[in-house]
Amino acid sequence: MTDSRPIVLTGDRTTGPLHLGHYIGSLVNRVALQDSHRQFLLLADAQALTDNMGNYLKVRDNVLQVALDYLAVGIDPAKSTIFIQSLVPELSELASYYLNLVTVARLERNPTIKDEIRLRGFERDIPAGFLTYPAAQAADITAFRATVVPVGEDQIPMIEQTNEIVRRFNASVGQEILVECKAVVPRVGRLPGFDGKAKMSKSLGNALPLGASPDAIRQAVKMMYTDPNHLRVEDPGQVEGNVVFTYLDAFEPDTAMVEDLKARYRRGGLGDMVIKKQLEARLQALLEPIRTRREDYARDPAQVMAILKDGTARAREAAAQTLDDVKRAMGLNYF
Amino acid sequence: MTDSRPIVLTGDRTTGPLHLGHYIGSLVNRVALQDSHRQFLLLADAQALTDNMGNYLKVRDNVLQVALDYLAVGIDPAKSTIFIQSLVPELSELASYYLNLVTVARLERNPTIKDEIRLRGFERDIPAGFLTYPAAQAADITAFRATVVPVGEDQIPMIEQTNEIVRRFNASVGQEILVECKAVVPRVGRLPGFDGKAKMSKSLGNALPLGASPDAIRQAVKMMYTDPNHLRVEDPGQVEGNVVFTYLDAFEPDTAMVEDLKARYRRGGLGDMVIKKQLEARLQALLEPIRTRREDYARDPAQVMAILKDGTARAREAAAQTLDDVKRAMGLNYF
Repeated sequence: MTDSRPIVLTGDRTTGPLHLGHYIGSLVNRVALQDSHRQFLLLADAQALTDNMGNYLKVRDNVLQVALDYLAVGIDPAKSTIFIQSLVPELSELASYYLNLVTVARLERNPTIKDEIRLRGFERDIPAGFLTYPAAQAADITAFRATVVPVGEDQIPMIEQTNEIVRRFNASVGQEILVECKAVVPRVGRLPGFDGKAKMSKSLGNALPLGASPDAIRQAVKMMYTDPNHLRVEDPGQVEGNVVFTYLDAFEPDTAMVEDLKARYRRGGLGDMVIKKQLEARLQALLEPIRTRREDYARDPAQVMAILKDGTARAREAAAQTLDDVKRAMGLNYF
Repeated sequence: MTDSRPIVLTGDRTTGPLHLGHYIGSLVNRVALQDSHRQFLLLADAQALTDNMGNYLKVRDNVLQVALDYLAVGIDPAKSTIFIQSLVPELSELASYYLNLVTVARLERNPTIKDEIRLRGFERDIPAGFLTYPAAQAADITAFRATVVPVGEDQIPMIEQTNEIVRRFNASVGQEILVECKAVVPRVGRLPGFDGKAKMSKSLGNALPLGASPDAIRQAVKMMYTDPNHLRVEDPGQVEGNVVFTYLDAFEPDTAMVEDLKARYRRGGLGDMVIKKQLEARLQALLEPIRTRREDYARDPAQVMAILKDGTARAREAAAQTLDDVKRAMGLNYF
């Protein structure tokens, strides 16, 4: 019996362990998807190298770290295929042909790339591999015939680029070899850092990693940005932009209770200590089983690597089939 | 016993059968090199696709045509390794990492690329795979640890780019993994087309393919550009820019006889018919055994493909070793 579930491709660059933002923005969704979908989870070490040449240890070590995060949140390797990008050479091969189907000008106009070039301060010193990574990403997606790609809002242009490549390739061979995909943007927006900055990241030191200790969770909540004008408990406080409430909205399932806290906070008479206590309890409860599972797996890295080895073999099989179809369509099947 | 001969990497894009210009500019040299050097001969179908997406049949069919040319001129598959680029996926993988070691600005400044972009009229519609092919070429060269790369004068910047990538990679891993190479420019300059145009090419219709029939050779010499002001036999004629003499210089081993003809032509009293007859005889004698061998091989394409299959397997083995070293140095050796 063939597997008729829709195919999802998603994954993470292996530049650091995952944090609460990843959890709410994508990991929860992946755990839910793995029953209804055939899910490929990419540990994107090769993509991480596009702007990390030289930081080899960081990229390598975080393959295990991100895999631990996946397993800790409940990604089931029997249901999802977790694999290491650099061990699927079919992806580089596909990407090398896709590079011929996209112009330099088109890559330079890609809004995601433009933003990230600015963000990284590359200016004119853009590594060619960074400018061209949309072609590599198109390879990652199409190799598995993924039709569903969960991405942040800012990544939508990347998916459009992939579909352009798909249409061009199919037109060039006069056959429907590759399939187009759909970007699925999760309803939950981006979680701010606990200092109130829009972007949560390990390097900014405002992110809570999934393996955080109880003490680290306590410290993070303690430092959390609230309403700087809410000086005395009896003063009315602001809920909008108050990170504690943003996090409660994201992580506290008892929404009625959160709405009640908001009303009381707005009215005045509710101290930051109280709402922080509430949030901390919630985060401790959420992260405790994740941390425990993470530590269990971390004690046996060989077992985790065996999972990745198995997933990578399955991923290669799928990618090799697509590559074979692509090369056959181009007439590159000589023997 | 290990093979200590210096390693040469050379080859051709598979966009058309080879012609006299290739013969004198590179093939003669390759036949000479195959004893003293370990020679890898690349049938560059993947590179041909960088500006031929859609022209799949042309690129595919010319793999066999170029291989026939190689064998016809005396490339010995027992001495040289002839292989098909698209069947060595290690090359795409290496290139994908090299792309991270070269900036977009650097590629755009590459004089060879600038010239070829102008030549092809790409303007802003440069396929990304075309702009980035120096990284792919660096992969072709370094995969085989080639130290000698015979190229035309115009390709020297490509070799410099390869060596830059080699140095950057080695510096990034702190080990001497990749080896630098040297461009070797043949003493023979570029042969003009028989219409006198500087560039000989199949598409301009001014090139004599190596498999040309006796009649085609006759016609080509008949049409050949001489001295447009040399109207009567008794007039003095010009030797410079006279394609017949350029060809005699290139193909007639009896240089004393050629010098004598030049003197008589300059003095006046020597007709174009005489020098053309001389050249035609020379070219007929040169191409007759090549054509015969080419036809012999062409009668058994399966044998030729078996040669390419064997060569490709040997090339993969060499390239896989380098790729393994490269990935190990970057820490991408997980299992």
